Amino acid sequence: MHPLKEGCYAPRNQWYVAAWSSEITRKPMERWILNEPLVFYRTERGEAVALAGRCPHRGFPLGESSLVGDDIECGYHGLTFRADGSCSRIPTQEAIPASCRLRSYPVFEDWMWVWVWAGDPGLADPSLIPNHREISLTDPAYQNAGGNYWHVPGRYMLMHDNLLDGNHVPFLHRHSFGGDDGGAIQIPKIQSGPDWVECEFNQPDIQCPPFLSQLFGYEGRVRRTYRSRFYAPSLHIFYDQTWSIGTDSAGSKLLGTILHIHAVTPATLHSTHYFQGEGQNFSLGEPSLSEAFRSSDMVKRALEEDVTAARLIEEMIQRSGGTLSEILVRADSAAVKGRRVIESLIEKERQPVAV
Amino acid sequence: MHPLKEGCYAPRNQWYVAAWSSEITRKPMERWILNEPLVFYRTERGEAVALAGRCPHRGFPLGESSLVGDDIECGYHGLTFRADGSCSRIPTQEAIPASCRLRSYPVFEDWMWVWVWAGDPGLADPSLIPNHREISLTDPAYQNAGGNYWHVPGRYMLMHDNLLDGNHVPFLHRHSFGGDDGGAIQIPKIQSGPDWVECEFNQPDIQCPPFLSQLFGYEGRVRRTYRSRFYAPSLHIFYDQTWSIGTDSAGSKLLGTILHIHAVTPATLHSTHYFQGEGQNFSLGEPSLSEAFRSSDMVKRALEEDVTAARLIEEMIQRSGGTLSEILVRADSAAVKGRRVIESLIEKERQPVAV
Amino acid sequence: MHPLKEGCYAPRNQWYVAAWSSEITRKPMERWILNEPLVFYRTERGEAVALAGRCPHRGFPLGESSLVGDDIECGYHGLTFRADGSCSRIPTQEAIPASCRLRSYPVFEDWMWVWVWAGDPGLADPSLIPNHREISLTDPAYQNAGGNYWHVPGRYMLMHDNLLDGNHVPFLHRHSFGGDDGGAIQIPKIQSGPDWVECEFNQPDIQCPPFLSQLFGYEGRVRRTYRSRFYAPSLHIFYDQTWSIGTDSAGSKLLGTILHIHAVTPATLHSTHYFQGEGQNFSLGEPSLSEAFRSSDMVKRALEEDVTAARLIEEMIQRSGGTLSEILVRADSAAVKGRRVIESLIEKERQPVAV
Repeated sequence: MHPLKEGCYAPRNQWYVAAWSSEITRKPMERWILNEPLVFYRTERGEAVALAGRCPHRGFPLGESSLVGDDIECGYHGLTFRADGSCSRIPTQEAIPASCRLRSYPVFEDWMWVWVWAGDPGLADPSLIPNHREISLTDPAYQNAGGNYWHVPGRYMLMHDNLLDGNHVPFLHRHSFGGDDGGAIQIPKIQSGPDWVECEFNQPDIQCPPFLSQLFGYEGRVRRTYRSRFYAPSLHIFYDQTWSIGTDSAGSKLLGTILHIHAVTPATLHSTHYFQGEGQNFSLGEPSLSEAFRSSDMVKRALEEDVTAARLIEEMIQRSGGTLSEILVRADSAAVKGRRVIESLIEKERQPVAV
Repeated sequence: MHPLKEGCYAPRNQWYVAAWSSEITRKPMERWILNEPLVFYRTERGEAVALAGRCPHRGFPLGESSLVGDDIECGYHGLTFRADGSCSRIPTQEAIPASCRLRSYPVFEDWMWVWVWAGDPGLADPSLIPNHREISLTDPAYQNAGGNYWHVPGRYMLMHDNLLDGNHVPFLHRHSFGGDDGGAIQIPKIQSGPDWVECEFNQPDIQCPPFLSQLFGYEGRVRRTYRSRFYAPSLHIFYDQTWSIGTDSAGSKLLGTILHIHAVTPATLHSTHYFQGEGQNFSLGEPSLSEAFRSSDMVKRALEEDVTAARLIEEMIQRSGGTLSEILVRADSAAVKGRRVIESLIEKERQPVAV
Repeated sequence: MHPLKEGCYAPRNQWYVAAWSSEITRKPMERWILNEPLVFYRTERGEAVALAGRCPHRGFPLGESSLVGDDIECGYHGLTFRADGSCSRIPTQEAIPASCRLRSYPVFEDWMWVWVWAGDPGLADPSLIPNHREISLTDPAYQNAGGNYWHVPGRYMLMHDNLLDGNHVPFLHRHSFGGDDGGAIQIPKIQSGPDWVECEFNQPDIQCPPFLSQLFGYEGRVRRTYRSRFYAPSLHIFYDQTWSIGTDSAGSKLLGTILHIHAVTPATLHSTHYFQGEGQNFSLGEPSLSEAFRSSDMVKRALEEDVTAARLIEEMIQRSGGTLSEILVRADSAAVKGRRVIESLIEKERQPVAV
């Protein structure tokens, strides 16, 4: 099964999170996406540009190049390309061969990040990206913070496996988020569609954990629900909700929602870009709770545990000759759904498209 | 010829030295043996355990896991295995599939180290291990010291070649043990069987070397004999004996025996575990002569020269496309015997076993 | 096209620059040439010796060996070889098998460096090396300085591409030699033969650049000509000439010639030896202008830019699966000629030789 099946890598006609907006500047940046080198930069007006990262002339990396206005000039021989990939200059000649151009990758910037379309540019439709207002990223009721980034030395599906499987938390994150309290381990309620997987965990009646008591100014019993949605192939949004359990006629009330934001993008065959942020819809204002949480040692430590797990499994796969046999357990249902969704997106691209 | 023949790696139905006893503790340790990952730990009662080092669920390395009583709990999702490899817990489900278990490797602990059986567990018979009392390791007439360990970045047979060939000593060890004094270079007297090779060097009448004079409190002429036995496929024991040459009727007398102890175990295809110790049967007591010798700069430097030679030849093989042509000389007779013995042990495993 | 064509590496029946003379001493030095290990040393009389760098016995690298008179003694088992490659000693035996010898590589020492013949020794004719007097290296009218060396982590043809293409200078060397002043970018006048390529650039009437004014004690308009010759497969000599443009009847006069000296030798399939020096035929005497120039930060920085470009392209090729498509532009004419010359030298060796 994907991701251990040879020749079954990643769907290309898809939007992927490519970078935090702040990473793309007037200094060209190389970033590999789906095993291809891209170069990212901004025009003078501030628009993000994504072009093939390899000069078609001699293969020099355009990440080592410089900008001339909105054009990018190869650092080796000065061939210059416009933001649309067309060539504006070949030193020593007037004629520009038609083949001398860079592939241009459609980009779409929203919230704090930049999406890139990795496949046929003619099919790039920004409305295919989950609506960032609807998924709370740009909803003014939320205060969100992004900026965490890891380059993961492991194939991307290992990160999706991880994000689709809450049951690793009490074990892998024992020393960051805390260990197994019994209640955390559940088979989630799962729903899925052709390009999404939704999971829900419930803790119907627990003592409010101390850090939530502090956040909400509430002591007592609470109900927690944990709902996550994987928008294949790149984005995961988690809604972590706490409800008071009223002892009087007031009944149950939502104390607040914490948002966990994750994006996963294939870099090369065996490495991955991982983007992460946090959000909340209560106690809005400065200083930002989400920013403090996102940049906290606890969150960074926990996410590094995830990155380490992906690295260790990747190393195990490599040292075992490129593959591994696996046993699936009930707790894997969501991860397996996620793999099937990705696999079917890949498979779909192999089919002739009906016109 | 082995070890330069493709697909001819190592015999599996054999005992190998896996670790120094002190290396195996209540903290799980990953160690690759014959190109497979194993995890070693001790039960609460102190028994050494060797299990497959890769969780069958998602391939997470069990060397990154923790113990729960005598069981090992995977650091990623908490699957837990007993010391016999059977699964005692899959979080979120009661049923344990039969396939969810770890291969268990028979171990045998004796003297200062732990042996592991790398092949079919049904054939693991500890009596196949050379009797440690008979080969002087646990003989009370000896005071022995172990604990030297190197991870050698070269295929294991390069270390056996080295140990079966005393003639490298005056050259490779010129700056540690000292150079060519003529007498050291000899064709040894060789005997061998299906799984052993024995070599003997003699220096019938030499001036007692200063460091031996100091050890034995003896000045004058001596006879030295140097007898080594390779117990294929892992162990080498060297008996280094010095005899006084009597000038009166007292005649010749054994001044003492120094024991050199070496074990070699394939880690991966191109790396090796190397264990080494020293012993003596004279001047018993504290402080231990053997311990001082084993941990001396001279011994460590000399052994690092051996490890370096294996690394350099491995690099040469790799850079030469994975193979090398060799010329054999008379001094190689014991090493060639050793290669033949190992090769025949591998070959034997390919034959159908008569019932 | 070479160098991106599989199985088309380098011509062997050729002289290559192997080392600076000062690199070859009484301490054996390993250096890979055309993907083979060689060992270089000097006899007691000072003659440079090049032998196969791998002991035929066990493959130990002879670069880790020591000299006994004019012979080299393997650091592992003491097999000893004469400067002609024949074996003078196998410890423990008198008889020397005929196969026990090292391949000997013809060498030729001239100016400040040592050439090696990488192919059939019977064809090694020093007169095939460009005459060092004629190409100004040993011409007493010149004061030349060598000694720059880089081990380039890229295939050798990337360095020839670079040296045959002056148009990278204003871009790659913008921060060392200075940027594009328009005049530097030209299609050179190219001539070529079966094993050479000659290029010529001209700047017919420019203001004398400050550093040349300082060198020549001349202010005013100058003509600069830049003539380079690639003596395939290893050597490039550049004549950088400045002529005053007389305002009176005196007419035009040669102010001086600066010599740029480069040699490129394949080390392994994907790495290269790069040797570089400088010379001049004016202001002879001490301190040496050329030595100051060769060892200046500006020259070293610029050459490191070239080495970096080769490394970056090599990495791009490797990450792209071992090949790259390229677009050729007019400015590549000399580099393409250079590739064709090398390719035809390789091709010629595949033909049966007429007798």
